Amino acid sequence: VTSEVRSAAVIGLGLIGGSLARDLAARGVEVCGYDRNPDDLRAAVDAGIVSQPLDPTFSGIGDVDVVVLAVPVDGAPDLLARVGAATSDATLITDVGSTKGRIVAQATALGLGERFVGAHPLAGDHRSGWGASRCGLFTDARVYLCPTDATRADLVRFADRFWQGVGGRPCVLRAEDHDRKLAWTSHLPHVVAATLAAALAGAGVSREELGPGGRDMTRLAGSSPEMWTAIAQDNAVAIDAALAAAEGELSRFRAALAADDRNALSARFATARTWFDR
Amino acid sequence: VTSEVRSAAVIGLGLIGGSLARDLAARGVEVCGYDRNPDDLRAAVDAGIVSQPLDPTFSGIGDVDVVVLAVPVDGAPDLLARVGAATSDATLITDVGSTKGRIVAQATALGLGERFVGAHPLAGDHRSGWGASRCGLFTDARVYLCPTDATRADLVRFADRFWQGVGGRPCVLRAEDHDRKLAWTSHLPHVVAATLAAALAGAGVSREELGPGGRDMTRLAGSSPEMWTAIAQDNAVAIDAALAAAEGELSRFRAALAADDRNALSARFATARTWFDR
Repeated sequence: VTSEVRSAAVIGLGLIGGSLARDLAARGVEVCGYDRNPDDLRAAVDAGIVSQPLDPTFSGIGDVDVVVLAVPVDGAPDLLARVGAATSDATLITDVGSTKGRIVAQATALGLGERFVGAHPLAGDHRSGWGASRCGLFTDARVYLCPTDATRADLVRFADRFWQGVGGRPCVLRAEDHDRKLAWTSHLPHVVAATLAAALAGAGVSREELGPGGRDMTRLAGSSPEMWTAIAQDNAVAIDAALAAAEGELSRFRAALAADDRNALSARFATARTWFDR
Repeated sequence: VTSEVRSAAVIGLGLIGGSLARDLAARGVEVCGYDRNPDDLRAAVDAGIVSQPLDPTFSGIGDVDVVVLAVPVDGAPDLLARVGAATSDATLITDVGSTKGRIVAQATALGLGERFVGAHPLAGDHRSGWGASRCGLFTDARVYLCPTDATRADLVRFADRFWQGVGGRPCVLRAEDHDRKLAWTSHLPHVVAATLAAALAGAGVSREELGPGGRDMTRLAGSSPEMWTAIAQDNAVAIDAALAAAEGELSRFRAALAADDRNALSARFATARTWFDR
């Protein structure tokens, strides 16, 4: 990172943004930062991670090399407009959102397409906020990179090196393909965890009463409601297709159970295990 | 364990039975054992855990102190009849199955009620077989104990000490209450993991493509189909009630998504997080 990135602005110092700021600072990058929560911003400065706190106009980011948006996906498009107005010299503008179609379209619409490469690191957990951030969060994490139609190939390589520099394993994907894929690989498991938690809450069963397997199954229920509401709305069509498939499987399982159909039940569990073992 | 239990018979040397045999042997208990898989039985003998392999008539268990049935729940009732015929001196006959109503009723029907305390340790993971067994599996694990109506209080205390002796935290519960409770705390998460895996299999998404959260959500899909088919059939009514609740939550989530209802979506994620945080 250090050889070609001397300075970066990280907007949003939560679990992902805060961890990225830590990794960059640890590699000698000068980090300016912003968070709408003044306590978190102050904590990042006091920790020696953010060397220059920004005000809400981002007036200090005129000459940074890389700008990273690390806010919930429903806030990112407006934020990108404000960032685009405040910076003209940044080599790379990127983000960390869990959906990519809307932000890539917004970059194009704002005329920022040449400088923008959307990113989505598969890192983090159910926690959120600066307090949950830590060094090394991106080590060995898959990082999807979604360029715009106007992004030059050398900027995609620059973005690739940027994320490799903090330990990630970048992989380029079209934004629409990313969103369809993630509906299955990430958004579906999150929503299933939340609905399982809601069902248990409705039955008066506490998380303490679960065994290790049940606790694994409900860990994602602790994720930020704000962040996940935004993701769900932003990728609603693809997520609904995945949820419909899960609901269909559940309904077929219940039918086999009601019919006391040993073979059908066994076949469903066997399908699951075959998939798991592959 | 060692002071009052000198010998035990463990029937079924899979993940649970094999681990229990290891813990007992490590504490100086003489363990005789049986598994219908001759390779697993031989491995347990070769490992020095089982000092006396049993034949399918269990002719050698006449004088052991404790008999433990560690087989899938659909095989346990017949096995209990065979074990009851082969032993008359055992202080305690117990099991490790995930459902308790049927085996406790069978113990009563066979006239073994005075010597039987059903047990269900919340231990193990998605793996199965002797190869997955290990020492210390029950350390700090909740162990539900379900006596029959004929079990004497001192035998329940004996069973309590037996499971504490291998590290477990026993807790007495009526068999019917156990099965209703476990439908929510264990069987529901297992079935949801299996249906999620089946949905992903149907969409051609491999487990490797999942992030850490998705992998947590599908770990239980690797569980034994044989074991879980038996549990599902044995506790079908209670499990279906729990699955109906989960399906209802999923369906309400999809309705909120279709209506692009931010408040409703946010409320569902917030319910999940409130439950998680409590």
